[in-house]
Amino acid sequence: MLKSDRQRLTAEQYYEGIRQGDRGILSRAITLVESRLESDQGLADQLIDLIMPYTGNSVRVGVTGPPGVGKSTFIECFGQLLLEKGHKLAVLTVDPSSVHSGGSILADKTRMERLAKSPDAYIRPSPSVRNLGGVGAKTREALLLCEASGYDVVLVETVGVGQSEVTVKEMVDFFLFLVQPGTGDELQGVKRGIMEMADAIVVNKADGANLAAAKQTKLALEDACKMLPLGQNDWSVKVKLVSALEQTGLEGVWKVILGFVEKMKAEGLFESHRSEQRIHWFYAYVQQILENKFYQDPYVKSGFERVLAEVKNGQASPKSMARNLVEEFLKK
Amino acid sequence: MLKSDRQRLTAEQYYEGIRQGDRGILSRAITLVESRLESDQGLADQLIDLIMPYTGNSVRVGVTGPPGVGKSTFIECFGQLLLEKGHKLAVLTVDPSSVHSGGSILADKTRMERLAKSPDAYIRPSPSVRNLGGVGAKTREALLLCEASGYDVVLVETVGVGQSEVTVKEMVDFFLFLVQPGTGDELQGVKRGIMEMADAIVVNKADGANLAAAKQTKLALEDACKMLPLGQNDWSVKVKLVSALEQTGLEGVWKVILGFVEKMKAEGLFESHRSEQRIHWFYAYVQQILENKFYQDPYVKSGFERVLAEVKNGQASPKSMARNLVEEFLKK
Repeated sequence: MLKSDRQRLTAEQYYEGIRQGDRGILSRAITLVESRLESDQGLADQLIDLIMPYTGNSVRVGVTGPPGVGKSTFIECFGQLLLEKGHKLAVLTVDPSSVHSGGSILADKTRMERLAKSPDAYIRPSPSVRNLGGVGAKTREALLLCEASGYDVVLVETVGVGQSEVTVKEMVDFFLFLVQPGTGDELQGVKRGIMEMADAIVVNKADGANLAAAKQTKLALEDACKMLPLGQNDWSVKVKLVSALEQTGLEGVWKVILGFVEKMKAEGLFESHRSEQRIHWFYAYVQQILENKFYQDPYVKSGFERVLAEVKNGQASPKSMARNLVEEFLKK
Repeated sequence: MLKSDRQRLTAEQYYEGIRQGDRGILSRAITLVESRLESDQGLADQLIDLIMPYTGNSVRVGVTGPPGVGKSTFIECFGQLLLEKGHKLAVLTVDPSSVHSGGSILADKTRMERLAKSPDAYIRPSPSVRNLGGVGAKTREALLLCEASGYDVVLVETVGVGQSEVTVKEMVDFFLFLVQPGTGDELQGVKRGIMEMADAIVVNKADGANLAAAKQTKLALEDACKMLPLGQNDWSVKVKLVSALEQTGLEGVWKVILGFVEKMKAEGLFESHRSEQRIHWFYAYVQQILENKFYQDPYVKSGFERVLAEVKNGQASPKSMARNLVEEFLKK
């Protein structure tokens, strides 16, 4: 019997371990949903279907900000606060850097040491490169598994570069953007898009010699946020000062999040927002599954190298090559 | 007879008009490839197949930079230089802002007035919102149509926000990034990704009171570029000062581009780079065509509202709903 066969659980065994709060099984289940193996995917889908009734009960918070802003220290301290309040906390990561460079900007294992030691906190490192492919969709499934395992606050962290915020925005209820004191001037151009996605902005490192600059940054950000159009949910972006070092302001951030959740639930917008997110993911899964079926089809596979060679040499247009192959795939 | 029927040409008629340099027919052909109508798409595909042998003969240059950097003034002046040298110039645009906001950051019609009047320059406004869907792929096809119509330099312009640079990078030979004097400090974080894609950086507005700051910015950028790893093509990023106002430095930019093309051709990298781009577009077209076939399938369409309602109410997972629908679609 192969090692991989011995280790393999049934969907029901994963399900029961997760529901009992078994962290080892939760970790293995997340590895399962991250897997690109066709056989693993079927099992992962069964598992997700089983846990669905037990999902949705957490507050889902996205955390982003540029490299160096102090995201992990913030999460370490903010997480402690949540644990003291009796919450169970899961921390997940969408790290696009690991897709391209093979290395991770967020070196998970050495971060958040105190949090990692608590039995009520679960920290999941970024998926490893070889398992990638639809990293957002897989993080979303990891989030569902954590919820089914009893975690009632889930932080989804991402580095503030490129597309990953958009992906995270589609899986969280509330989006927190971290900045450093003195970054008011830089909040032009590209970052404006991220500001428009934020529900609250945290000016981190608001302590010691930075405090005055932090207060100025807060004012500048509040001014800038007044210029932004209110979203459909009629929520104005809140700006908060935090010192992870001196442990100040963390309580205020949590109050903002709870206030947001309460307001949205009162107005019926909390559930409708999640519904819209499910629609988003439905379209994303359609694309992913269609492409999987196509590229794993024996007919497509058998002629694929020849087709790629023809596309490369450029006699025919890539579009007509694609159209022909898709049409032949669908005919069978 | 309907108006749209009267106006409709055959693929051969489009083809002949384009080959004869008829600008009106070129414009109508680009509108055709931008169309989302199923009937137009078939005709557009035929046309692209017909013109394929006459494409590839231009220098394809991407131009990007943050809003306000002076892209249109640069293109206006740089374009004049190319016309004086006897080139035929096409200017195309990938403007992601029009997708989301319904308005365009780049108000094409009032820009580049001098260039627009020249018989040897062809300026194509951004596609209108209602026609969008795979905006990159459609711009790429517009580029091919321009080449078949005899334009031997094609500038593809994009605003420096978000994903559009990645799309443009995949359709050009050379990528030009415009900055303003004094932006050295800001070239951290998000913009680093764009710097890594650039083949040359133009410090624009290097005139009058800005000249000293522009020279400093040039030095800072050259230092920063030394830190970047060389790409596969072993090309180091060039930094050039330009004043569109005083018409200085434009000749130098064109020399850099020609030097790049010459070096790449000598090393066989010019064609291999284009081959890789064709492969990229092949995968993009597979995705687009698969999704078109799926969403336009009568069976999928007939049950779609019910499926979306079920996804919304959240009883089943979006993934299993997607999987079931894709599997039923493929079975028929």
